[in-house]
Amino acid sequence: MSLLAVGTVAFDDIETPFGRAEKVVGGACTYISLAASYFTKPIRIVSVVGDDFPEDMLRYMEHRGVELDGLQIKVGEKSFFWAGRYHENFNTRDTLDTQLNVLATFDPVVPPHWQHADYVMLGNLVPAIQMAVLAQMHQRPKLVALDTMNFWMDNALEDLKAVLRSVDVLTINDEEARQLSGQHSLLNAARAIYKMGPKYVIIKKGEHGALLFHRGEDMFFCPALPLAEVIDPTGAGDTFAGGFMGWIAKTDDTSFENMKRAVVYGSAMASFCVEKFSIERLKGLTPAMIAHRVEQFGNLVRVDLG
Amino acid sequence: MSLLAVGTVAFDDIETPFGRAEKVVGGACTYISLAASYFTKPIRIVSVVGDDFPEDMLRYMEHRGVELDGLQIKVGEKSFFWAGRYHENFNTRDTLDTQLNVLATFDPVVPPHWQHADYVMLGNLVPAIQMAVLAQMHQRPKLVALDTMNFWMDNALEDLKAVLRSVDVLTINDEEARQLSGQHSLLNAARAIYKMGPKYVIIKKGEHGALLFHRGEDMFFCPALPLAEVIDPTGAGDTFAGGFMGWIAKTDDTSFENMKRAVVYGSAMASFCVEKFSIERLKGLTPAMIAHRVEQFGNLVRVDLG
Repeated sequence: MSLLAVGTVAFDDIETPFGRAEKVVGGACTYISLAASYFTKPIRIVSVVGDDFPEDMLRYMEHRGVELDGLQIKVGEKSFFWAGRYHENFNTRDTLDTQLNVLATFDPVVPPHWQHADYVMLGNLVPAIQMAVLAQMHQRPKLVALDTMNFWMDNALEDLKAVLRSVDVLTINDEEARQLSGQHSLLNAARAIYKMGPKYVIIKKGEHGALLFHRGEDMFFCPALPLAEVIDPTGAGDTFAGGFMGWIAKTDDTSFENMKRAVVYGSAMASFCVEKFSIERLKGLTPAMIAHRVEQFGNLVRVDLG
Repeated sequence: MSLLAVGTVAFDDIETPFGRAEKVVGGACTYISLAASYFTKPIRIVSVVGDDFPEDMLRYMEHRGVELDGLQIKVGEKSFFWAGRYHENFNTRDTLDTQLNVLATFDPVVPPHWQHADYVMLGNLVPAIQMAVLAQMHQRPKLVALDTMNFWMDNALEDLKAVLRSVDVLTINDEEARQLSGQHSLLNAARAIYKMGPKYVIIKKGEHGALLFHRGEDMFFCPALPLAEVIDPTGAGDTFAGGFMGWIAKTDDTSFENMKRAVVYGSAMASFCVEKFSIERLKGLTPAMIAHRVEQFGNLVRVDLG
């Protein structure tokens, strides 16, 4: 099944305790589409770049099964740029610079032949743009997932709440779940967010794993895999979302049982992502490598309780 | 099988975002022994209190199968006292007051008929006292577990390293594992600590669960159960250790597979502990309540990956 993905395609400057990378490829939609491409084809992206975005990266995405008919390329303009610095523990980061560039005037257009998509991933972006994409769909997709962040809660809460009413799955980190719900307990937060619209709430806890809630009742937890070396967490949440939705689209199954599998596949893809800067580790993976990683996740929690 | 436990029996003042409790019963050995008492009897404790410690609490401990022959009661002296305040997220706390009282001169004495213990839990305490207890054992126990904290790394590192060479299991939180090993990755930290002595390293991550490492290679992860309400995290780590060692002593099985089960039982007991102040939630549990909680842990991570 095809997957429609919306989000940024961009450049990042990244500083971590272990190194730095300048003007590397980033953006939520980039990570989402590359991760999803290991599960399903085509991935159809709706995004915008300037003419500074590397042509060979676009060719690589096409090579991975990513269709670019919905990617606007603005001549004479610059791509979205973000610069950030991670703290020692990787759990917090400072934004050093944000240059909207092409994003400032982005008006998303879903090509007509894409408007019947079964699966839609609304990557982190202005809630009004996420909503504008949904509004262009000719029929209700089988599943719509949305990722967002605290910036939109601070600056566009009503728009965010409006789009939340139209989505099935929300992916959000733990602090953001607390902010959005006003609840400290993640269980209570998930219950409160369920009442805002999404049947499924996925709370991403970075190195501490991810929690999936269904209707504020059924729960599933997937740990993060302990790794010897984390190089760059940038894009891990987007990669998780891409792996998650890629698996759902591949299997065309939106049951809770299959969502649980999707969370494991998303977590496995994210565990690759953090092992190198930018999207480097998402290049050249094989089904066997992914299967082996998923097996490690299964082994990590396996216990015979009799 | 019997379990020998060493640690404080004490009073706590506790402030959390949701309330406060004054001069309530606390102490590592109290939590350890009550948690373990749901799995095995007798629990034999080596500790010290003043004559201010409530008689009815001691009778309750005996009622739970805790033998007090190794508990020194110092007439005219006061019990160890700790006061602390938890921050909004419960993950950090400030110590407001520490009064050593009877602990300042504590010289642990293991009664002769206890010196053949099969299972020994060295609760968080001065490393030299933990070592003094081990030195009184007539034979190498089947399993010795040790809990410690950053205070001893800062103030008695050489003593701590000495006792670590003699134990099988170390329980420690994530930041302390990083401090002790100098490694940020918990996988690398566990590998480094394994070289210091303990075959098993359990890294406690509070609301984020617990990781068990065997010889720095085999891993097992047990999440914490998402709870609607956390009232007081005090003693959760000790309760975990008590449930863990109680299960090991009950089953008399120190295989990695059984250690994994013990981590789940320890986590289940800790999930009860945090639901009320002090030891209140550890009173009056039943085997059925514990079995149900353990089942919830199993369900939380259950997924069919095909």
